[in-house]
Amino acid sequence: MSGNIYAQDLPKTPANFVPLTPLSFLERAADIFPQRIAVVHGALRRNYRDLHARARKLASALEKRGIGEGDTVAVMLANTPPMIECHYGVPMCGAVLNALNTRLDAATVAFILDHGEAKVLITDCEFAPVMKEALALAKTKPVIIDFDDPEFPQSGERLGALDYEALLAGGDETYVRRFPKDEWDAIALNYTSGTTSNPKGVVYHHRGAHLLATDNVLTCSLPDGAVYLWTLPMFHCNGWCFPWTISAVAGTHVCLRAVRARAIHDLIHEHGVTHMCGAPIVMSTIMGLPESEKKPYPKTINFMTAGAPPPEAVLAAMKEQGFNVTHLYGLTEVYGPAVVNVWKDAWNDLPIGEYAALKARQGVRYTMLEGLDVMDPETMTSVPRDGATMGEVMFRGNVVMKGYLKNKVATEDSLAGGWFHSGDLAVIYPDGYIQLKDRSKDIIISGGENISSIEVEDALYKHPAVSSAAVVAKPDEKWGETPCAFVELKPGMKASAEELIDWCARHLARFKLPKHVIFTDLPRTSTGKIQKFKLRDKANQG
Amino acid sequence: MSGNIYAQDLPKTPANFVPLTPLSFLERAADIFPQRIAVVHGALRRNYRDLHARARKLASALEKRGIGEGDTVAVMLANTPPMIECHYGVPMCGAVLNALNTRLDAATVAFILDHGEAKVLITDCEFAPVMKEALALAKTKPVIIDFDDPEFPQSGERLGALDYEALLAGGDETYVRRFPKDEWDAIALNYTSGTTSNPKGVVYHHRGAHLLATDNVLTCSLPDGAVYLWTLPMFHCNGWCFPWTISAVAGTHVCLRAVRARAIHDLIHEHGVTHMCGAPIVMSTIMGLPESEKKPYPKTINFMTAGAPPPEAVLAAMKEQGFNVTHLYGLTEVYGPAVVNVWKDAWNDLPIGEYAALKARQGVRYTMLEGLDVMDPETMTSVPRDGATMGEVMFRGNVVMKGYLKNKVATEDSLAGGWFHSGDLAVIYPDGYIQLKDRSKDIIISGGENISSIEVEDALYKHPAVSSAAVVAKPDEKWGETPCAFVELKPGMKASAEELIDWCARHLARFKLPKHVIFTDLPRTSTGKIQKFKLRDKANQG
Repeated sequence: MSGNIYAQDLPKTPANFVPLTPLSFLERAADIFPQRIAVVHGALRRNYRDLHARARKLASALEKRGIGEGDTVAVMLANTPPMIECHYGVPMCGAVLNALNTRLDAATVAFILDHGEAKVLITDCEFAPVMKEALALAKTKPVIIDFDDPEFPQSGERLGALDYEALLAGGDETYVRRFPKDEWDAIALNYTSGTTSNPKGVVYHHRGAHLLATDNVLTCSLPDGAVYLWTLPMFHCNGWCFPWTISAVAGTHVCLRAVRARAIHDLIHEHGVTHMCGAPIVMSTIMGLPESEKKPYPKTINFMTAGAPPPEAVLAAMKEQGFNVTHLYGLTEVYGPAVVNVWKDAWNDLPIGEYAALKARQGVRYTMLEGLDVMDPETMTSVPRDGATMGEVMFRGNVVMKGYLKNKVATEDSLAGGWFHSGDLAVIYPDGYIQLKDRSKDIIISGGENISSIEVEDALYKHPAVSSAAVVAKPDEKWGETPCAFVELKPGMKASAEELIDWCARHLARFKLPKHVIFTDLPRTSTGKIQKFKLRDKANQG
Repeated sequence: MSGNIYAQDLPKTPANFVPLTPLSFLERAADIFPQRIAVVHGALRRNYRDLHARARKLASALEKRGIGEGDTVAVMLANTPPMIECHYGVPMCGAVLNALNTRLDAATVAFILDHGEAKVLITDCEFAPVMKEALALAKTKPVIIDFDDPEFPQSGERLGALDYEALLAGGDETYVRRFPKDEWDAIALNYTSGTTSNPKGVVYHHRGAHLLATDNVLTCSLPDGAVYLWTLPMFHCNGWCFPWTISAVAGTHVCLRAVRARAIHDLIHEHGVTHMCGAPIVMSTIMGLPESEKKPYPKTINFMTAGAPPPEAVLAAMKEQGFNVTHLYGLTEVYGPAVVNVWKDAWNDLPIGEYAALKARQGVRYTMLEGLDVMDPETMTSVPRDGATMGEVMFRGNVVMKGYLKNKVATEDSLAGGWFHSGDLAVIYPDGYIQLKDRSKDIIISGGENISSIEVEDALYKHPAVSSAAVVAKPDEKWGETPCAFVELKPGMKASAEELIDWCARHLARFKLPKHVIFTDLPRTSTGKIQKFKLRDKANQG
């Protein structure tokens, strides 16, 4: 025999090859732990048998309505049981889950519904006002399913003819999944906040979702039966893939409609929460509970945070309260977190200054991320590992997105040269840990939400009195950062700060509004480019 | 736009698709934990930087000798540092690792070398006598590399012109891996003990090795920096993929040339071992240490065992000594263990009889195994989940082998109907846990080694005085099972038990020899088939 003997007569067969998908985690959990509690929400307790049955009913009901492979199902939901069910039921019938940011304005939601070609919309009654307006603006006309949370009934009106429970009632709990046919098939669609006027639709596939969901178990040391509190919105990169991760350890989801200190504290005690995730604002919220209302936790709770590096004071307070904080970093394009500040025991003994400097770093690649580097984007060569030379953060591997939906140019640009170009600027240290230094696209992170400075500037530019506008991040104790606008008015025109903020509110979601407006002559380069770094200095000074 | 919008302009690129391989685990561990101890062996301590460098040197040195994609590198090694290095360095250059069972006889080794077309053989001097004979018998003429363990020098002669360290010295530690090109590419070749006269070569691919290695972390709750003691031979299904698993958690390998109670006990204390695997015989060995020589362990050690269900007395003794025993099950064809007796806390409170009955079950599928079932192999339908109806254990998923090397018929037969047919007979309980009831192919498991009864019978049949022979398993306190031979002599011919055992020793490895030979008329069915179940009853009675 000649040639590669291992390449002969050893083909893939249904016995030894199946597409990777996180959907199999739920099937296994329901098989082995049918009676274990999968979902807690208010007074509701739902076990794995029932969660799986309801996901199958959802898939079956959607399929009966003609929804199938490659169809988009948009959802406007808080962290409630249907949101978890949709993470399974929607892809189970071959469709793609598009979880909408519940804080978006109607125009952006309408854009997303149209761009994603949503065939079905499942919407929580709390968000009926903005959804009603968005549906009026959108060209696409999805089938509308209302969800009025029985645990926390909402006053919002119904927008469709069918309720979520009625939809499920028409489904078959013995539904057998036939999808994905290929692990490269899409599982979810998540829109970026957008650095130009329109957000981009990031497509995840089953393979990547399986791998990142598994990696969360490794990275966050999730034990069998972990109890996970939903302080991170599931609309954020599919809750960093934790809706799927929790099934891999047959853990318990503790739902939470809104991040409130008292509720978090009580739920931790009541359910023995072991893990939770969230932006730094969540930590501040938790720490904001008056001391008199706090009870010590019986065991350490693992808190994974991403975004701005956690401030030393908050870390100290979190530790005292019984939290072990791990710093993660990622982007929508890498399924949420794909970088972790792997902490070494020896660092705990360092002087506080060095300790804090190490804590502020973003870290190293997740196990399932093949490559992480800081590169000169022009030459695509690594910058020196000196902790000083800036470059662009680059990602490579199976937990990098499939691409941007219906945007061939942006997809090709962002994945050029064998790496995903993050747009984030960083340095890399001799030990291989990276640290973000700036965002090349001027994103402001406020309360864990990305805000494009360009989008806010666009809104300001529409005001008749505005000649020029530049928006930068201003450090904020509560929100991490808030947008700070610097404005030049047209000669002879007048406008107050309040007036401009009100004006922006017509075009932007509430969280994107500038908190400060400063009238000034904008500093420019000789070629007329606004020197944002000078404005950042001003904003930092107060 | 029409059709599936997610299937348009979203191709795989080098940025978002790389072949899955466990080799990336070592690269990451060396990146992040270069100074952490990766390998302990005698007085030797080797960190991750050096382990990775040596694996790259090995790959480079092999490549310089013309070894590459699809070439077989056979190794006859104990659980020593080179064995770990080979699990990375060999596949790193595209070659396939064929780890030989160090207990095999020369004829079988020769068959394997020829069948696997070994281009290189790395062999420990301890095994020089059998290897010398095997090489004389084999048609293939591999490049021979000797390894004389500097920590435990052997008296065996050198068979080749090159020593292992000299080979590595010629390699380049900056070698950049270009393999696998496809995750379906072979990574390892492991021969079954064979149920017919010749063993079959089970081929593993990089995808399956990556997934099972990851799954071990989940199933065995391996923490970052786990300390793993090598009481399971790495030639057994690549040590159940643990050579790769340990890198995924940047843990420490504690090597062990031979399973001895005193050494195990001392290494556990010295290195803070957290996890180990082995056949039940290993537990008996550990427990065999005199009480006066035992010191209590500072923390619980996780012991994963497979093969015969652990006897209640051994479990109790293990628990008292500080071990937590988990019962696994699998076969060479599923990368080692792919079934785990997931233990539920509530079961600890059951009466001892029920407790023991539950402990004896093989369990449920690994997270990365897509399907496990007990079926009627004729109709390929599931047997009722009644704990009584027997059927064949079937496996399906990405941790089922690529197939049998150069054996299209056996590959197709074993993977027919979308499932891998294990040949093991079992029942399935209402809760989905399976329990083995018999081995349809009459395998005897002795000291963790599979012995084909047919192979032993074949040896007996070759003796001029033997008319008929049937070999069954006889329960054995030390070995679990040993072969027990029932023999009919030809009329007028004579042979003693000793004579027949000596005869078998000419054809079989030592561990396969029958421990008992009983001369008797063999019970037969009306069609002349030997009724082995009656012989098993006799063997059980003593």
